[in-house]
Amino acid sequence: MSSPIDRVTGAHLIAGTPQPLGGGPTFRAVDPARGVPIGPEFPEATEAQVTAAATAAAQAFAATGDLPPAAIAELLEAIAAGLEAIGDELVELADLETALGPTRLTGELARTCGQLRLFATTVREGSHLDVRIDPADPSATPPRPDLRRLKVARGPVAVFGASNFPLAFSVPGGDTASALAAGCPVVVKAHPSHPATSQRCGEAIAAAVAACGLPGGMFSLLHGRRTEVGRALVLAAPIAAVGFTGSLAGGRALFDLGAARPDPIPVYAEMGSLNPVFLTAAALAARSEQLAEGFVGSMTLGTGQFCTKPGLVFVPDDDAGRRFEQQVAAVLGEQPAGALLNAGVLGALDERLGVTRAVDGVQVLAEGHPPAGAGSRCAATVLATDLATYRATAELREEHFGPVSLIVRCPTPESMVEVARELPGSLTVSIHVGPGELAEDTTSGQEPLAALQAAARGRCGRLIVDQFPTGVAVSPAMHHGGPYPATTDAAHTSVGTAAIERFLRAVCYQNVPAAVLPPALRDDNPLGLPRTIDGQRNPA
Amino acid sequence: MSSPIDRVTGAHLIAGTPQPLGGGPTFRAVDPARGVPIGPEFPEATEAQVTAAATAAAQAFAATGDLPPAAIAELLEAIAAGLEAIGDELVELADLETALGPTRLTGELARTCGQLRLFATTVREGSHLDVRIDPADPSATPPRPDLRRLKVARGPVAVFGASNFPLAFSVPGGDTASALAAGCPVVVKAHPSHPATSQRCGEAIAAAVAACGLPGGMFSLLHGRRTEVGRALVLAAPIAAVGFTGSLAGGRALFDLGAARPDPIPVYAEMGSLNPVFLTAAALAARSEQLAEGFVGSMTLGTGQFCTKPGLVFVPDDDAGRRFEQQVAAVLGEQPAGALLNAGVLGALDERLGVTRAVDGVQVLAEGHPPAGAGSRCAATVLATDLATYRATAELREEHFGPVSLIVRCPTPESMVEVARELPGSLTVSIHVGPGELAEDTTSGQEPLAALQAAARGRCGRLIVDQFPTGVAVSPAMHHGGPYPATTDAAHTSVGTAAIERFLRAVCYQNVPAAVLPPALRDDNPLGLPRTIDGQRNPA
Repeated sequence: MSSPIDRVTGAHLIAGTPQPLGGGPTFRAVDPARGVPIGPEFPEATEAQVTAAATAAAQAFAATGDLPPAAIAELLEAIAAGLEAIGDELVELADLETALGPTRLTGELARTCGQLRLFATTVREGSHLDVRIDPADPSATPPRPDLRRLKVARGPVAVFGASNFPLAFSVPGGDTASALAAGCPVVVKAHPSHPATSQRCGEAIAAAVAACGLPGGMFSLLHGRRTEVGRALVLAAPIAAVGFTGSLAGGRALFDLGAARPDPIPVYAEMGSLNPVFLTAAALAARSEQLAEGFVGSMTLGTGQFCTKPGLVFVPDDDAGRRFEQQVAAVLGEQPAGALLNAGVLGALDERLGVTRAVDGVQVLAEGHPPAGAGSRCAATVLATDLATYRATAELREEHFGPVSLIVRCPTPESMVEVARELPGSLTVSIHVGPGELAEDTTSGQEPLAALQAAARGRCGRLIVDQFPTGVAVSPAMHHGGPYPATTDAAHTSVGTAAIERFLRAVCYQNVPAAVLPPALRDDNPLGLPRTIDGQRNPA
Repeated sequence: MSSPIDRVTGAHLIAGTPQPLGGGPTFRAVDPARGVPIGPEFPEATEAQVTAAATAAAQAFAATGDLPPAAIAELLEAIAAGLEAIGDELVELADLETALGPTRLTGELARTCGQLRLFATTVREGSHLDVRIDPADPSATPPRPDLRRLKVARGPVAVFGASNFPLAFSVPGGDTASALAAGCPVVVKAHPSHPATSQRCGEAIAAAVAACGLPGGMFSLLHGRRTEVGRALVLAAPIAAVGFTGSLAGGRALFDLGAARPDPIPVYAEMGSLNPVFLTAAALAARSEQLAEGFVGSMTLGTGQFCTKPGLVFVPDDDAGRRFEQQVAAVLGEQPAGALLNAGVLGALDERLGVTRAVDGVQVLAEGHPPAGAGSRCAATVLATDLATYRATAELREEHFGPVSLIVRCPTPESMVEVARELPGSLTVSIHVGPGELAEDTTSGQEPLAALQAAARGRCGRLIVDQFPTGVAVSPAMHHGGPYPATTDAAHTSVGTAAIERFLRAVCYQNVPAAVLPPALRDDNPLGLPRTIDGQRNPA
């Protein structure tokens, strides 16, 4: 009874209130390091509970109207403080449920709270409201009325917690933070792989909502392992938008549900990504061993369960490429067999890897330590193939979720450009070059490298030079998105302050008397917002 | 042979080049004022032609990369100049094909060219690129790399011309202008109701593309009356986004196609809208006759074929409301029977009106002059009903596209609020109040009017006080959008400079050497763009 997981109750939180445990189906978390069930029984949310949470969110939305920026910022900060107050417990719970380790999880908690506070700062500053005022112009043809535009909250948002970041992309993660920052009530469908962590995070958010004097319906948390719960949530009438991080199959299913509603809603899903890496001959000549270490470190980080894990590496098909492969094999051989998040992830990875291994022309280049002991452990694996096999085999362009990556040998620099043009949409593409190589390319007109950069940018949301893709800063300029299947809309990011934009819509006020304009649109600008007046940004 | 329509050839323009007329099916335009076919035979685009246009667009997109803002602006200005150079001919052609009249069409041409020039100015200014630079921060935990984000063109855009604005919402209209402003090549599916006008506009755009030295694939124009042409265009692999203005059925069908693609694409459809108008007792007391004149003028403008036509009017169910109805009847009785855009519009309106007239509890309040002579003419019609009938009858909440509107009698101010909360999403909601009534409401706490305003804003994209909804200024603060079914995404507008945002996606450059960064992201800011650096807008 000393573990905090034994003190967690498996109750849905609807409008902040724990729901009585009913007699329906339940599920339990599993310790992925030991392979044994842990903690309490968590109930599957019923359709009535989904409806109750969505209805409470709609009521909260109607009651709060346009939340003042300061009120939203205080809520975000209160949530951060509430999470920190139970930080040790959260790290312990999350480690029990995910086996990601206390160091990583302590960092993830700091990232989560930092994200909430950055969003608070962003909301106070107010650029995201994109306030525009066009004064009346009676002399125009036709005469122009007074027009004032701002962004407002879309309405209740459904958030699906991800398995691989139990804090930063889960209940208190980027989707929840950005939806609340937009002023939207949130209903979270907790990921069933870490329900206890979700429960305690949800309680902290609900407590912050209450402490800030906001309606309880601003936040609800529902448990469920069955797809029916998520389906009912996306179809619930009051839900106005959805944030999701997870698998391509899951994200696409929710996207299709949202698009097929009588009133379609946007489903912002961040899904599968291969995060291709290109290594030029000059890069290998300059630092082959360092690149091998960097690559293996990046592909095994978090047991290969990062959205940005490099899953494809394109190398020259020559001696330097082979030497890089040998260096990768040497580093990989030292890698312990990490625990995957749950048995489902392990099963899916085994199946995918089986398909890949069976492709004629693909060989296993190296493996890390074989799994030993209990739990959902797997060996890190790097495979290799030639370009012709890669291009001829659609299965090789699907993500392995876990510590598996494929090296593809390219006969010429030009062939790297061609393959870059055909890449499936990814969150990132990384290019490692020789010292000064890119700059030389521009000035000397060496076409392949400039063309590679252009082709790569066309297929991703983040173009990286000389770094590996894992590690996603939460900042104004971050873009964690990309062409399908990386996301369902390449215009949007799920990380960084621009993530708030997903949950806003625009409204224009025409000829509305000053006395009843929202404060954000008044001439005297009581909120001190940045504004565009008559097409001029921030006139004095 | 003196009419310009006899000099138009019915050829698709693919990458700027007129296509030979094949042997397939064709169609002709119809003069809606006389009901007779006019002009040449226009061919239905084949699937091969759709593919050729989309492929040419993809090639142009790859060849142009990030078009410099100045190059885009010059193209937009060249198009405006090209349209003006054939302005008299365009007005004559459009009047022949739409019967909207030379005065209106001359104004629409000016609006169209003004829109192109406003977008040129907007592109040069550069706020829409939302440039954000986060300098590297090695001291952060984890260290933050140099990150630079901007918006780039999504890729080839398919535009579906609308029937009701043969210039401003058609081939050279807002969707084409905003897609080109974003740097996207455009493939237009011309509306079959004004193919000759479309053809001449398309030739002017193609000529401007050529004159600016841009690849011909930046613009293609396809004809077609069959739904197969539009379907093939939305499904064409290179198409990255769609702009549409038209019917709910048409927009939803295209949206569904876009969402169901292997790689879903956004379909920005602006569709049906009731544009409800609320008249308070105080408004009627102050200026009932003026409101009746304003309402009839707005609902019959362009023969009732504006997206923003007021299709519902909520009035107090009392003597003042009845007097307003009588005043409406008097004004309406003087209205001539206008020509609708084509026989299809007339047929659909007759059918809808038949359904509405047959509803128990709905009566015809007044009609304009009965149609006389040839062509697709109809009488303007105002119907009236009680609130209970309106709420009980779903058919009364569908748009009549044409000069038809429904007055709904509300027993109390509170009932107006209730019905406002239930409104289908609309582009606009208008509230007419007594002098100072809204301001008094705020200070004195008279709940209904404040609640009406809040409820109305929740159901529309533009909230209007004391004006009627027709008339949509093209300006930075305009928002011509709204909750479904007004549009497929309430976040976006199809009018005003914010319309450009639909056709952009974001990209982040991480650790990319200065020498190969796009000019928009370089420290020395050679394009003079507004920027956000380390979270600060436009630091000195």
